[in-house]
Amino acid sequence: MDIDAILAEGCRRDWRTIDPGTIEPLRFAVIGLGWFTRGRALPAFEASEACEPTVLVSGDESKAERLVAATDGAEQGLTYDAFHDGVAREDYDAVYIVTPNARHLEFVETAAAFDKDVLCEKPMERDSDRARAVIGTCADAGIESMIAYRMHTEPAVRRAREFVREGLLGEPQHVSGDMSQRLLDRVNPDRDQWRLDEELAGGGALFDIGIYPLNTARFLLDADPIAAIGQTGSSHDAFADVDETVSFTIEFPEDVYASCFASHNVHQSSSISITGTEGQLRIEPAFFQDEARELHLSRGDGRASVTFETVDQMHEQFEYFTDRVRGDAPIHPDGDHGLVDMRAMEAVYEAADRGEWVSLS
Amino acid sequence: MDIDAILAEGCRRDWRTIDPGTIEPLRFAVIGLGWFTRGRALPAFEASEACEPTVLVSGDESKAERLVAATDGAEQGLTYDAFHDGVAREDYDAVYIVTPNARHLEFVETAAAFDKDVLCEKPMERDSDRARAVIGTCADAGIESMIAYRMHTEPAVRRAREFVREGLLGEPQHVSGDMSQRLLDRVNPDRDQWRLDEELAGGGALFDIGIYPLNTARFLLDADPIAAIGQTGSSHDAFADVDETVSFTIEFPEDVYASCFASHNVHQSSSISITGTEGQLRIEPAFFQDEARELHLSRGDGRASVTFETVDQMHEQFEYFTDRVRGDAPIHPDGDHGLVDMRAMEAVYEAADRGEWVSLS
Repeated sequence: MDIDAILAEGCRRDWRTIDPGTIEPLRFAVIGLGWFTRGRALPAFEASEACEPTVLVSGDESKAERLVAATDGAEQGLTYDAFHDGVAREDYDAVYIVTPNARHLEFVETAAAFDKDVLCEKPMERDSDRARAVIGTCADAGIESMIAYRMHTEPAVRRAREFVREGLLGEPQHVSGDMSQRLLDRVNPDRDQWRLDEELAGGGALFDIGIYPLNTARFLLDADPIAAIGQTGSSHDAFADVDETVSFTIEFPEDVYASCFASHNVHQSSSISITGTEGQLRIEPAFFQDEARELHLSRGDGRASVTFETVDQMHEQFEYFTDRVRGDAPIHPDGDHGLVDMRAMEAVYEAADRGEWVSLS
Repeated sequence: MDIDAILAEGCRRDWRTIDPGTIEPLRFAVIGLGWFTRGRALPAFEASEACEPTVLVSGDESKAERLVAATDGAEQGLTYDAFHDGVAREDYDAVYIVTPNARHLEFVETAAAFDKDVLCEKPMERDSDRARAVIGTCADAGIESMIAYRMHTEPAVRRAREFVREGLLGEPQHVSGDMSQRLLDRVNPDRDQWRLDEELAGGGALFDIGIYPLNTARFLLDADPIAAIGQTGSSHDAFADVDETVSFTIEFPEDVYASCFASHNVHQSSSISITGTEGQLRIEPAFFQDEARELHLSRGDGRASVTFETVDQMHEQFEYFTDRVRGDAPIHPDGDHGLVDMRAMEAVYEAADRGEWVSLS
């Protein structure tokens, strides 16, 4: 693959294994109806022909019912308790879990009991022990499970990965990545939101957005971390319990390092760069939705920039999940993949406490 | 200052304190005639009206004489020994030292003995003890001294610094910087070059090019390091004695971190980014010469890119040094400033050995 081939490939769904016109739509119970679900997930479900958000589940029954009335394809609103009790269990095939991190496992357990496949938001859970319980629960029940990283079906990231995989950067040597936003000012002003609550979230900027450069570095390098170091900081009193800002470095095999930064309290920004012996690529903006991705490539003395059409990342991800659940191809990123991030992020926090490298081996 | 003002300021020599038409040209002894001197320094001297490279000093007398014949303004070629002996000492006012790092001090000592001002290449010397000796020698003699970082008079960097200083990024929170090149393949194929010799260089990629993002981070933040951590690596046998690659993080006051990368054996690249609570700026390409700098700014919802005319960084620096030596304004970056980088780089190496943060306080 060269730059011409990247341009030609564009936003093609190269992961597709079955014709979506030949399958029954996949019916989802959507669990957790916060701003992300309302603003991002439900519109993507509505745009999809391959899946439908038939059941909406919330702690607040009236909110669930209001959203059912406003959402194409939605048929029933349930409380969390009603969901656990099995109400409407014949009306969905899979669950999409968008609850606070520490409430992922309970819905995985119920989905497994009802033999429903699971699409679970990142990070998998609030800690690695509970993430392991997610994996074990899905394995025991024989259900499909996937972690909703979005980037594995983002066309710019997929094309970048092909570029690396074809050796066009030579040997990768370094990754630099960042993701930041003004959470309270620009996204959600609520001081009581679960993202600020260590019990519910497990971590702060690292768990919520630092995971993007971390996971995308893994995806681009096709490698897993072997050690981590990092520092966390908070200046705003809303971030008393979780990290507002994190700067961390992940060691990959063969002396490859990824330097990453995330903050919930600085200007919105996102990028990932990978530098190799023969070239460099950079995606910027990289991670937030509704942005036209730019992929900047340099190799030898040449430089090129490719602008990708903006795709709905949630829509892409739902289509992929449906393709894998309805078809036979293996699903990715699965729980084992997600657990690696959980352990790496815990190692970053431990390293921040101890002031030294923490091994992941 | 806003973006309009940056555009209007452009490449103006805002540091100028005296009219160069009113001063006697500053006559330099140029000490060390390697590829950098021949390709970069001498052409810049030739282009300058404010200074002249009257005396050229080399270990190889015939090389010195050949270059005198080929260089406008050059009058005499000397060996290192002849220079130390005081030959032609009336024919230069200042020295520009471009020898291997471990041979800076001896020429500073001779320049001080002859009451000549000193422009010394970065890094100051091969270690911080010898850097302190450089400072003490210049102070005792009452001569001017400056470290030749180039970036302090690079217009794109100066404009970026004003942007930060005016608070247009809000509170700076993170810096990301890198500099890399294929030293052997693209710059100098000689396996015997001093940059690969730990005795002469003191360090590898960090000392030679990692110092650019480090020092430019300090300049942009107007702050000094308080701790460092890093990792070094070498894959190529030419880098048996010094680091081929270094990935390091510098802690600045108030939980600001700079993540940096340098390599002598990957694709040429250089950039520096600084992210604050209100905005972000990025210079790319940032450090190598003969490149049109681009300064990318984002603030609120706006983004802008400013392309700067390519200046000859060496020429700018020689003009600045001459302005300060001939005038009364303080000179910067001086030896005390350079020593901070020496200590920070030694801390990176120590941290790489120990696997933990090394304090600089």
